[in-house]
Amino acid sequence: MSTQRSALLLNCDLGESYGSWTMGLDEQAMPHIDLANIACGFHAGDPEVMARTLQLAKQHGVGIGAHPSYPDLQGFGRRSMQCSSAEIINLIHYQVAALDGMAQCYGMSLSYIKPHGALYNDMMRSDAVWQAVLTAVASYHKPLKLMILATAEAARYQQQAAALGVSLWFEAFADRRYTAAGTLTPRSQAGAVLHGAEVMAQVKQLLITGTVTTDCGQALALQADTLCVHGDNPAAIKQLTAISALLQSCP
Amino acid sequence: MSTQRSALLLNCDLGESYGSWTMGLDEQAMPHIDLANIACGFHAGDPEVMARTLQLAKQHGVGIGAHPSYPDLQGFGRRSMQCSSAEIINLIHYQVAALDGMAQCYGMSLSYIKPHGALYNDMMRSDAVWQAVLTAVASYHKPLKLMILATAEAARYQQQAAALGVSLWFEAFADRRYTAAGTLTPRSQAGAVLHGAEVMAQVKQLLITGTVTTDCGQALALQADTLCVHGDNPAAIKQLTAISALLQSCP
Amino acid sequence: MSTQRSALLLNCDLGESYGSWTMGLDEQAMPHIDLANIACGFHAGDPEVMARTLQLAKQHGVGIGAHPSYPDLQGFGRRSMQCSSAEIINLIHYQVAALDGMAQCYGMSLSYIKPHGALYNDMMRSDAVWQAVLTAVASYHKPLKLMILATAEAARYQQQAAALGVSLWFEAFADRRYTAAGTLTPRSQAGAVLHGAEVMAQVKQLLITGTVTTDCGQALALQADTLCVHGDNPAAIKQLTAISALLQSCP
Amino acid sequence: MSTQRSALLLNCDLGESYGSWTMGLDEQAMPHIDLANIACGFHAGDPEVMARTLQLAKQHGVGIGAHPSYPDLQGFGRRSMQCSSAEIINLIHYQVAALDGMAQCYGMSLSYIKPHGALYNDMMRSDAVWQAVLTAVASYHKPLKLMILATAEAARYQQQAAALGVSLWFEAFADRRYTAAGTLTPRSQAGAVLHGAEVMAQVKQLLITGTVTTDCGQALALQADTLCVHGDNPAAIKQLTAISALLQSCP
Repeated sequence: MSTQRSALLLNCDLGESYGSWTMGLDEQAMPHIDLANIACGFHAGDPEVMARTLQLAKQHGVGIGAHPSYPDLQGFGRRSMQCSSAEIINLIHYQVAALDGMAQCYGMSLSYIKPHGALYNDMMRSDAVWQAVLTAVASYHKPLKLMILATAEAARYQQQAAALGVSLWFEAFADRRYTAAGTLTPRSQAGAVLHGAEVMAQVKQLLITGTVTTDCGQALALQADTLCVHGDNPAAIKQLTAISALLQSCP
Repeated sequence: MSTQRSALLLNCDLGESYGSWTMGLDEQAMPHIDLANIACGFHAGDPEVMARTLQLAKQHGVGIGAHPSYPDLQGFGRRSMQCSSAEIINLIHYQVAALDGMAQCYGMSLSYIKPHGALYNDMMRSDAVWQAVLTAVASYHKPLKLMILATAEAARYQQQAAALGVSLWFEAFADRRYTAAGTLTPRSQAGAVLHGAEVMAQVKQLLITGTVTTDCGQALALQADTLCVHGDNPAAIKQLTAISALLQSCP
Repeated sequence: MSTQRSALLLNCDLGESYGSWTMGLDEQAMPHIDLANIACGFHAGDPEVMARTLQLAKQHGVGIGAHPSYPDLQGFGRRSMQCSSAEIINLIHYQVAALDGMAQCYGMSLSYIKPHGALYNDMMRSDAVWQAVLTAVASYHKPLKLMILATAEAARYQQQAAALGVSLWFEAFADRRYTAAGTLTPRSQAGAVLHGAEVMAQVKQLLITGTVTTDCGQALALQADTLCVHGDNPAAIKQLTAISALLQSCP
Repeated sequence: MSTQRSALLLNCDLGESYGSWTMGLDEQAMPHIDLANIACGFHAGDPEVMARTLQLAKQHGVGIGAHPSYPDLQGFGRRSMQCSSAEIINLIHYQVAALDGMAQCYGMSLSYIKPHGALYNDMMRSDAVWQAVLTAVASYHKPLKLMILATAEAARYQQQAAALGVSLWFEAFADRRYTAAGTLTPRSQAGAVLHGAEVMAQVKQLLITGTVTTDCGQALALQADTLCVHGDNPAAIKQLTAISALLQSCP
């Protein structure tokens, strides 16, 4: 974890190994992040992996959040599934509770929920899914923050969450280009994913001015509490380290 | 739940439906029992079923326990799996935590753990599995009782559990014949399963004298806190109701 | 199987038990049907259930088809999943091949494929899914018929299937009301599901005139090779038996 | 595949990725081996991975075998499960059939079965499991060879297999030390796994004299049709390449 907390917390998806399969360089990423989004067994993670990941987060003083998903191990939670609101609420409760209880066995405390993959995308796209996720967080037996995408509609999301007593954390992406509407430029479009110096420039701009430059070249104000970074491969770790250093130099 | 708690609590495996498949007459059994052993998703139960079962238990004021299993949905947790101690500890933590957290969402509180099927049998047969289960219960973040089979070796089990700070609940079976060693007569032997009046006689004897008559015809003292009953079919419900009535008449 | 094959073959979803969970009265339904749509393990059915179902079909001389599904055991294949065309092709190949090879172990021969649940619905609704299913059938290593819904657009489906060398079987529903467009009246609408004498009347009309009466009261010509019936409960078995008797009396 | 088939075929476990998780350097290993043992979805492999692996094997003219396992994805099929004989037969039929049918979709033909992990170990250790596996192979609808461990008891295995009409392929391990009894020295013992030059020496000795040197220093005759090699990591690929070159130089 950054020894000096910056205005922008770094969050990263971790604990995404499963059984004999390894994914992510968790041991290399963990020292540089503030918040670990930990898989709960439905798209990745099994009880062994979860126990290891929790202990690794504890060792580095990293905050922990549940990263629940649709039940789709083969699809890594990336395939949208037509679940009812009740199903979404219960699958979130189950996964969050599993991680929450395991965390407490290590003297740790869960602080937030960030839906994974298709569940995250569906939440940002469908009002029914968004309401189901909100209800799941609101009806969980302890207050947990909900992490969602920072968009131009932050105020509306905040208002709806507040109505149910839920606090939000907005996340921005270090390596994704934004549209004028404040959503992510689809990966299918050229320039949607930023690289190297572009990433650092976007982080710096966000940190200093609170804006990003959209794919139309305009500055867009983005209210972001946290920045999503990756730890999948050596290049990602290198970038993550650079971002972490940048944040510590401009708190 | 019996309106007047008897010396012998009735426990029953419930919440063993899965998805579109129904198992057990949970709605008929719940009003007559004291303790519901609720499946946690590894041998049966899914988040929907768990939510429904918890609410049904709450409605009838029934105490709730986690019923964790080896991860074997097709085999209903009845096939022994060669898991390491660490794997057993983590799979128990995961399942117990999932149910525990969901229960708290309904304002309910988990009070015990009863391993299911092959995990239960392995626990009573293998010292390594027994120690792993004990460790799992002892390292869970809140004190939960562990329910195991009442045998002639109760004192040894109690001593080992106490060493780790774990309290035990011993369960007897209403419908199973016992050996002189205080274990269950294997189902492969004639007379292993009791029927009708035999069941009622065994319950009555246990209640009044604290003994059962073994397959050798001897009385065997059996320290039992709870009696395991079944709710799978109409005949089981009928027997369960009769046992419940008997217990209330001789508290 | 009906001793005398009528113009309308009766097909029924069977083999939908899983592990310790039973679904469907397969032993009671099998004697009355012509075609068994057998689950292949992704929404129901496991290797044990599949082996039993195949042997039961053999005993009654019933034709067998694969009933592949999205990989969703908890949702019984009824939740749409956003799979790519390649994923659909491969998951169909896998499931069909598993059943096909097991059938051959009993000297039986698979004759068709009927997608299950959400995969079936998506196939009738989305051109991309329809093309993926067609491609899966066309690229299977032996010619198998594809069973789809009989609608007013039968000619278009047939043409597209023929282009890939695939033969279709159209199925009508005995107990569902049809719209003027020749699709099923949504279950959400009153009168969508027929009961008792209405069912028998619809079957008789289809058999004699090749039409059904739509929810607007008009006669709609429906090209149907087979009629889908159910075997889930005693009432369904009774209806199935009556339909079977009717078909044998008016071949 | 070795352009010139040697007396010792090289077999390798492949297709052990799953969903988003990659395992094994299949593309690097495939060109050097003769026989690919392909996972069938129960311990690894999914329909996508299976399709890719089959096509890769076809491209390199590598023979293909089914690598069925106990149903244990999290445990990678390495945890023994107490399955009945019927369960073992059916789970082998299902997995072999799935791969067999998919292979035929690519114009390929399955030639053998090699049980995976705990199922393989149980087969070599338990007579009941061995008989169940033999029965599964014998009752499959086409003749497939069964690959088992080359031990000092080869004659007995061969006799029992022949009684059911099954042909065996015996495999030796390039990198494992043998006991005087002709079994593998347990990994828990020092020197159980050979490295570098030791591996090459053992392969050479086996190739020229048909013997291995046991952990007691004695020569042991080992009837081996095939040699099991690994392709998990760059070092394994290097060794595999060296063994392949050695075999081609001394056919």
